[in-house]
Amino acid sequence: MSRTSSTNSRTASAISGSATPSPAASLAASPVASPAPSLRTPDGPVPSGAPAWNRQRGSAMPFHRYRPAHERVEIPRTERHWPDARIERAPLWVPVDLRDGNQALAEPMDTPRKRRMFDLLVAMGFKEIEVAYPSASRTDFDFVRHLAESGAVPEDVTVVVFTPARRDLIERTFAAIEGLPRTVVHLYTATAPTWREVVLGRSRDEVHALVRDAAAYMAQLAAARPQSDIRFQFSPEVFNLTEPDLVLEICNGLTRLWDASPDRPVIHNLPATVEIATPNVYADQIAYMHRHLERRDGVVLSVHPHNDRGTGVACAELAMLAGAQRVEGCLFGNGERTGNVDLVTLALNLHTQGVDPMIDFSDIDAVRRTVEDCIRIPVHARHPYAGELVHTAFSGTHQDAISKGLAHHAARAAESGVPHAQAPWSVPYLPVDPADLGCSYEAVIRVNSQSGKGGIAHLMQREHGLDLPRAMRPDFSRTVQRATDDSGQEVTAKELGELFRSAYLVPGTDGPVRLGSWSATEPVPGEHRVRCELDGVPCEGAGNGPLAAFCAALAAAGHPADIVDYAEHALAAGPHSEAVAYVRCRIGGAMYWGAGRDTSVLTASVRAVLSAVNRAAVDRSVAVQEAVSREAVSGR
Amino acid sequence: MSRTSSTNSRTASAISGSATPSPAASLAASPVASPAPSLRTPDGPVPSGAPAWNRQRGSAMPFHRYRPAHERVEIPRTERHWPDARIERAPLWVPVDLRDGNQALAEPMDTPRKRRMFDLLVAMGFKEIEVAYPSASRTDFDFVRHLAESGAVPEDVTVVVFTPARRDLIERTFAAIEGLPRTVVHLYTATAPTWREVVLGRSRDEVHALVRDAAAYMAQLAAARPQSDIRFQFSPEVFNLTEPDLVLEICNGLTRLWDASPDRPVIHNLPATVEIATPNVYADQIAYMHRHLERRDGVVLSVHPHNDRGTGVACAELAMLAGAQRVEGCLFGNGERTGNVDLVTLALNLHTQGVDPMIDFSDIDAVRRTVEDCIRIPVHARHPYAGELVHTAFSGTHQDAISKGLAHHAARAAESGVPHAQAPWSVPYLPVDPADLGCSYEAVIRVNSQSGKGGIAHLMQREHGLDLPRAMRPDFSRTVQRATDDSGQEVTAKELGELFRSAYLVPGTDGPVRLGSWSATEPVPGEHRVRCELDGVPCEGAGNGPLAAFCAALAAAGHPADIVDYAEHALAAGPHSEAVAYVRCRIGGAMYWGAGRDTSVLTASVRAVLSAVNRAAVDRSVAVQEAVSREAVSGR
Repeated sequence: MSRTSSTNSRTASAISGSATPSPAASLAASPVASPAPSLRTPDGPVPSGAPAWNRQRGSAMPFHRYRPAHERVEIPRTERHWPDARIERAPLWVPVDLRDGNQALAEPMDTPRKRRMFDLLVAMGFKEIEVAYPSASRTDFDFVRHLAESGAVPEDVTVVVFTPARRDLIERTFAAIEGLPRTVVHLYTATAPTWREVVLGRSRDEVHALVRDAAAYMAQLAAARPQSDIRFQFSPEVFNLTEPDLVLEICNGLTRLWDASPDRPVIHNLPATVEIATPNVYADQIAYMHRHLERRDGVVLSVHPHNDRGTGVACAELAMLAGAQRVEGCLFGNGERTGNVDLVTLALNLHTQGVDPMIDFSDIDAVRRTVEDCIRIPVHARHPYAGELVHTAFSGTHQDAISKGLAHHAARAAESGVPHAQAPWSVPYLPVDPADLGCSYEAVIRVNSQSGKGGIAHLMQREHGLDLPRAMRPDFSRTVQRATDDSGQEVTAKELGELFRSAYLVPGTDGPVRLGSWSATEPVPGEHRVRCELDGVPCEGAGNGPLAAFCAALAAAGHPADIVDYAEHALAAGPHSEAVAYVRCRIGGAMYWGAGRDTSVLTASVRAVLSAVNRAAVDRSVAVQEAVSREAVSGR
Repeated sequence: MSRTSSTNSRTASAISGSATPSPAASLAASPVASPAPSLRTPDGPVPSGAPAWNRQRGSAMPFHRYRPAHERVEIPRTERHWPDARIERAPLWVPVDLRDGNQALAEPMDTPRKRRMFDLLVAMGFKEIEVAYPSASRTDFDFVRHLAESGAVPEDVTVVVFTPARRDLIERTFAAIEGLPRTVVHLYTATAPTWREVVLGRSRDEVHALVRDAAAYMAQLAAARPQSDIRFQFSPEVFNLTEPDLVLEICNGLTRLWDASPDRPVIHNLPATVEIATPNVYADQIAYMHRHLERRDGVVLSVHPHNDRGTGVACAELAMLAGAQRVEGCLFGNGERTGNVDLVTLALNLHTQGVDPMIDFSDIDAVRRTVEDCIRIPVHARHPYAGELVHTAFSGTHQDAISKGLAHHAARAAESGVPHAQAPWSVPYLPVDPADLGCSYEAVIRVNSQSGKGGIAHLMQREHGLDLPRAMRPDFSRTVQRATDDSGQEVTAKELGELFRSAYLVPGTDGPVRLGSWSATEPVPGEHRVRCELDGVPCEGAGNGPLAAFCAALAAAGHPADIVDYAEHALAAGPHSEAVAYVRCRIGGAMYWGAGRDTSVLTASVRAVLSAVNRAAVDRSVAVQEAVSREAVSGR
């Protein structure tokens, strides 16, 4: 089965290409142009039966060292109903941030950070919280004592503590919870074959006996504390690699031993400690347990997925479809290696299906900050619902669609008289209204060289109150794209405003054609006159309105301009607000947009016309200069 | 449906608890003890039918604004075979890092960074690569020209370019690919109802006509370039929200219009542009298309999942089970919002099922660094296969199991005469051998206060060559735990070595009991004598070996110690290597471990005994001092 990698000369030359001089000057000058990593280019055998359109070749990766899941464990089959099921209610969420999450940190939380995490979980609405592995370290034990002694645990919250199947450690666990009114003692034992053989050195029967003895001892210690409400949980570790009949045998044995009932149910938690297969396989495994667990109404079927294959969320969801009633996980998916399943994503996945998550995410940034402070691992920028980039769009297509969608949403909400934040949501590319999570619309659209007119217009409206006429948007968009293509950088809303000001507003007051004092009159109704100084020369014009009259004056001064489009709006409500005017003029056979701003609607529009005239004048003088320098270069 | 949040006084006091003085002194002193975010504590109605063990309450989240997927689109049903299928061959992987990935960056890649990414993708073995949206920006257009002119594209690699359904933009797209020998022109159009209505303002028929016209124009432009191998791809945007009959109608129309055949297949790419449901629903949607697409052997069924619900990987995998043959995604899941599906995770998920990923990941760190340099977004520490924390374990249980598993793996490999890196892999908690990815074992186990003796022993062996006797490990583990419990910090392998040196090796040469010159002789075979100076006083002892004789001398000097355990090993191969000795002595009714190190095996073991004696002496003097200070405090 061993393979050797051979080198494909064509591919090899492509790899070294980035280090050799390139025809693109910008490439040769690049500081990042370093060689690609020297990998073993896959160029192995053509796989048998591969279609001609697929040119992929066998790799040198030692994949033959691994076996598929169905060769590692028996995947039980029952009638498969879960693909037709729907999740219509939130399961019991049980955060294990303080135990499984904490044990995966390079720097475990100290008591103050643990307390902060605990308070956050309570504030969010979690009612069952795994808080420690008290026999594993002094800090864990101390934290449970802190909870017991500080009154930090609300009356409706149950605390879970984790223990291995050893008498001395079970005793220490019970010592830790002394005084806590409601607890779950969570027993775990590795049951999967590799773990039994390599780690425990025990047979199936010996492992079963180990669990039974520990469980009986737990029952005995609990019975000696009748004043405390102590319930039991069991986790067969690496459930998904354990023989189904062994798991059933052990779990059903404990159901009886602990005398499970609807009033005092036993929790059987079936961890995908390490993911081993596509998530439908876990669903089949859970469905089998759901069907065969004894005293089913006295048992809470719990799942505990990890994320080694990147499918922890899917495992939890398909397991819920298959009968799971309780889900253990961590906020933002902290936990061993690739993490526990992320409870934030799971809960908000219900929210966006119209199902109450039963957890509060109304200020997701605050939740994120607290978690980041506690665990000292940042949430990724693309983390569902919470990452800093997930409510953004940079591409023009997406921005345009979002911009139209938001406008449509606002209009529909207004029609039905419902506040925006309560109206049904269906905006393109935004699976959730950021406002639901305490995030603002403003952050949604960001602009760079990929951005289109839609997103830019949206930001100009939101951030600067400027409602650019639809026909003007492509013009401004080109200005922005030139700026971003050159810099390669994102443009902030503030910079967009600055680009607009320098491109359109400045030429209305400062440019080659200078407007001095001016006045407009209407000597006869319907007949308007403008008297002005242009480039220091007095001029006059008449027309059916003041702008037409101004254009006539411009023409008289040698700067003809025809207005073909005009729009103007106030920047804010109220009599003292400024107005912004947008004007498109045909000048010398081309179209020019201009804009002006003033507290006087007339001054704003006069400036807009002058802006268009000045922009045209600048264009002409650039063209002339270019022609002159071309002639100079060619030596004519 | 609107809800108001009411305040639960118990919960509220728990939330403010972290800001009020606490019985735990360490908590009160904490710099991080700030209040929990003020969320709307869920305390709504008890959901009807909720079991007593689930105390979760209705939240104030506006979930009623959303509808479940099956109310938004018709989910087609066919006979469902995919849950029984298995993935036994890699699909055609098509990275879209340079298009969909790039358009989602705040700072899009410039040509040098794009080229670096392209070279990486080629070196990894990708054979079909989407490189640009050439009509969207100058940088995208320029990059395709760079590829065409620089000879960067190997003979067996096909380049894909993306275009909307507009004649002028299609023309610019064809201008971009001029001179490239093999390309796929990828047409997309939004087909989902919200997009048609809100974004395009077109009916079903109008959208269909738009696509047909664009596709016909593409065919015409391609026919005019008979020297180029130009194939076609179509994406109905937001496939998963589009009416199934409309998608089929459009796709089958294009199959005919483009005259799809096995030799020149058409690619129908069905994007989950935004995730809308659990991944089994996407699988059902793909299964329906797989069954009903015309000329099935002339069509490549492609998928393009995004990750809004955190289930992009699952969607791709279940879609492959349902008939998908081609998967578009990005390295490490870059892309719009929450990203495109991660091709690294998908490919390595096949690897760990014993299926050739057909892509090279033998140096995953190099791949990661290159991608991070290109896109300027770091890969998360818990990212499957590639995150810096995924090949680690901090908890004692996991470290112990991994340590045993690695030893078992080594032994089994040696037995069968296969190199470690080629032998079948089944080490607990490590779903992949880090060595397959170019990562080292050393990084696997890291130590903090959660760690157990197994992990510590493993690191002492790996990093320092010290094979601590099994019985000594708990003793050293307590030393380490005291250090980490106090600091709360992770301990490096170097610090572990330092802890061992100061705890065991130093007392063998420096402590209350001082050993001066010494010599050992064997005057009569089997009878050993040691002459030495202890605390400056000459002593002598005899025994059946030199250590027994040394103990007799110690006893004569008033420091009796019985050796109950002894182990010694060389630190490295060869005659000049140092040896390390480990000795356990019963001293004054208690057990003490000591260790010594020297090029002489005898000197090393004498030092180990002296180390145990000195450690006991320090313990006694600490106990005496404590007693003295207790007396001083109580005033006696």
